[in-house]
Amino acid sequence: MRLAVVGTGLIGASAGLAAKRAGASAVVGWDDDRSALDVAAEREAVDPAGSLADALRDADVALVAVPVAALPAVVGAVLQHAPARCAVTDVGSTKGAVCAAAGSDSRFVGGHPICGAETRGPGRASADLFEGATWFLTPLTTTEPDLYRAAHAFVASLGARPFAIDPEAHDRLVAVTSHLPHALANVLLNQAGASLVEGNDPLATAGGSLRDMTRIAGANPRIWVDIFLENRIALAVALAEHRRRVEQLETALAAGDAGFLARWIGEASGNRRRMLDTAYEDVGALHRMRVHVPDRPGVLAGIFQALGAARINVSDFDLEHLSPDRGGTLTILVGGESDALVAARLLEEQGYGVVVAPVLDE
Amino acid sequence: MRLAVVGTGLIGASAGLAAKRAGASAVVGWDDDRSALDVAAEREAVDPAGSLADALRDADVALVAVPVAALPAVVGAVLQHAPARCAVTDVGSTKGAVCAAAGSDSRFVGGHPICGAETRGPGRASADLFEGATWFLTPLTTTEPDLYRAAHAFVASLGARPFAIDPEAHDRLVAVTSHLPHALANVLLNQAGASLVEGNDPLATAGGSLRDMTRIAGANPRIWVDIFLENRIALAVALAEHRRRVEQLETALAAGDAGFLARWIGEASGNRRRMLDTAYEDVGALHRMRVHVPDRPGVLAGIFQALGAARINVSDFDLEHLSPDRGGTLTILVGGESDALVAARLLEEQGYGVVVAPVLDE
Repeated sequence: MRLAVVGTGLIGASAGLAAKRAGASAVVGWDDDRSALDVAAEREAVDPAGSLADALRDADVALVAVPVAALPAVVGAVLQHAPARCAVTDVGSTKGAVCAAAGSDSRFVGGHPICGAETRGPGRASADLFEGATWFLTPLTTTEPDLYRAAHAFVASLGARPFAIDPEAHDRLVAVTSHLPHALANVLLNQAGASLVEGNDPLATAGGSLRDMTRIAGANPRIWVDIFLENRIALAVALAEHRRRVEQLETALAAGDAGFLARWIGEASGNRRRMLDTAYEDVGALHRMRVHVPDRPGVLAGIFQALGAARINVSDFDLEHLSPDRGGTLTILVGGESDALVAARLLEEQGYGVVVAPVLDE
Repeated sequence: MRLAVVGTGLIGASAGLAAKRAGASAVVGWDDDRSALDVAAEREAVDPAGSLADALRDADVALVAVPVAALPAVVGAVLQHAPARCAVTDVGSTKGAVCAAAGSDSRFVGGHPICGAETRGPGRASADLFEGATWFLTPLTTTEPDLYRAAHAFVASLGARPFAIDPEAHDRLVAVTSHLPHALANVLLNQAGASLVEGNDPLATAGGSLRDMTRIAGANPRIWVDIFLENRIALAVALAEHRRRVEQLETALAAGDAGFLARWIGEASGNRRRMLDTAYEDVGALHRMRVHVPDRPGVLAGIFQALGAARINVSDFDLEHLSPDRGGTLTILVGGESDALVAARLLEEQGYGVVVAPVLDE
C-alpha cells in the first residue's frame, strides 16, 4: 500500500508513522508549509515530495490532513492529481462542506478520527495517536466500493475503529457529542469568570465540578472557530434544543417541582450508565476510591505498585491538584466492590484515608 | 475542645474522626437513625449519646451534618439544647434557609465544606475527607466573634481551609461554581441521550469531551433535588444568564461572526488560566503528555515507577477507559517542558507513543 499524506502536521505525520509501522510500502508527504514537511521528514514520518502532484503519483490512498476551512480546496486539488484507483480521504471534524466539494467523485470518502488531538506540529507526532480511536468514514452512494474498502482497511491498519455514517448525520452527531459540549464549556467558564460575587471570584473557589465541566474550554481558537462555523447549522439546532431544556428546568424550579427534578436526574443517571456501558465491562460493579495525596515524587509509584502487586486492575483514575501546598485528590476506579475494599485496605496501610463508593447511584 | 456531631453520616463521622486526630478531648454523636449512629460508633468516629440533648451537654462546638432540607429544623433543635458558649455550625450546600432559621442566635455560624462527597453512610467515613478542602463559613453581624473564631479553628483543625462569606453571596457563588455546572451536565447528557441520529446513539460514540462534561451528571437525586430547590432563586438567575449567553453565541453563529468566536474562546482561555492559577505554581509551564495504554495490571505501576525514579513530579493525571479491549488514554501533566520531554523519552523507551503539548494554548 502506497500512502500519500497531504498536510504533515500532527495528524498527518502520526498517520505516516502508524502506516509505516503497519507495513505500508511507501509513505510520501506534502505540505505547503515547507518547515512542517521538513520536520515530518526528519521524524521519518513521511518521505518528502517535491510537489503535491509528486506526492500523489502512484498512491493507493491519499490522506488529506489540513485545517477544516482549507479542506474543500485541498481535497479538490488532490482529486485533480490523484490516480484513478486512489482512495482519497480526509480528517476534518465536519463533513458537510468537504463532501459537497468532492461532489460525486467516486474516489472520495470523508473521514474524521476522534483522537482528541489539537493541531500541533509534526514534531509531536506519534504512531499510537489513533490506537483504539473511533474513526468516522462517510461514504456516499457515488463512492466506488473498492476504494471505500481501501480507506476502511487503511484506517483500521492505523489502529483505529472505522465507523461508517452519512456525512450529514455525522455532522449532527458530533454537534451533540463534541461541538455542543465544547461550546457550553466556554459559555460556562465565561459566565463564572464574569460573575464577581461581592468581591469573590468564582474561579478562585471553583470546586471539581466546574473544573471537570470546563476542561475543554478555551481550546485552540485557530481550530475551533472554523469547526463552529463549518458546523453552525447542526450546532444551532443543538443550541436551540439546549435552551429549550434549560427553560424547562427553570419552569420546574419556579414551580418547586421536586418530581420533575428527580425524574430528570434519574434520566441523566440512566444515560450515564448507557454511555459508560461502552467503556466498561460491568459499569454497575465499578467502585470509586477517593484519596488525598501529598505533592511529592514517588507517591504515585508507591500507590500503583501496591495495587499492581495485589493484581488490582485499575479501570480509570484521576489526580486533580488542589494547590501546590495542598496536594491533590486521587480518584481510582476499580471493577468491583471486593477489589475496592482490598485496594482501600492496602492504601490505608500506607497511611491514606480512603472513601469508597459505587460509581453509579442506584 | 468538646465536639458534638449531630447527623453521623459520611460527613459527620469523617469530621468526628478528623477532630479526634486533631486532639479533641471528646467527640459525642447523635443521629435519629440509630443504625447510622451505631456504625459511626463502631468506627470510633463518635461516642454515641442517648439523646440530642445528651450529645450537646458541655459541647464547645456542635456540627450539624444532616441533609439540606432537614437543616432548618435540626439546627433549631440544636440551638435549643446547646450550651450558651457553644458554637453551632452546619455543612449544608446552601446557606440562605438555614441562616434564616437560626435567626439572630449569636451562637450560629453557617458552614459548607467543598469535599466532593455525596451522602453515604458512616461506614465510608475518613479522617482525610476535608484535607485541603475549602470550607465556607457564613458569619452574620449577630454572630458572637469568639464563637465564630471557635468554628474557624475547628474547621482548620480538620485540615480544611475556612473561607468567610456572606450567606446570600455564598448561595450565589455556589450557584455558578457548582449548581449550574451540575444542572448543565444533566441537561447535556439528557439531550445527547434523547438524540438518536439516523439510528446512531450519540452516547455510543461519545468522545472524551462529552464524558468530561457529564462526569457529575445523574448524581444522587436524594441530595440534589433538595440542593436545586433550596438554591432555586440564585440558580434561576444563573440559568437565565446562561441562556442569554447561549443566545449570543447563536446570533454570532448565524452571522458567521468569526471575530466574536475568536474573542469568546480567547476569553475562556484566559478564564481557564485564572482558574488553574490557584491550583498550580506555574500554569503556563504545564505540559500534557498523552499515552495509549493497554488494559493490564502492572502497566501503571511501571509508568509511575519510571517517572518517580527520574524525579518527575506529576501534577495531574487521568486515565480514561475506551473499552475493555481497547485499553485507555493516559494523560499526565508535568510542571515544565523539559520534564515533559524527559518523561516522554522514558515512556517511549517502554514502548509507548507519547504526544506532548502545553496545557494552555497561547
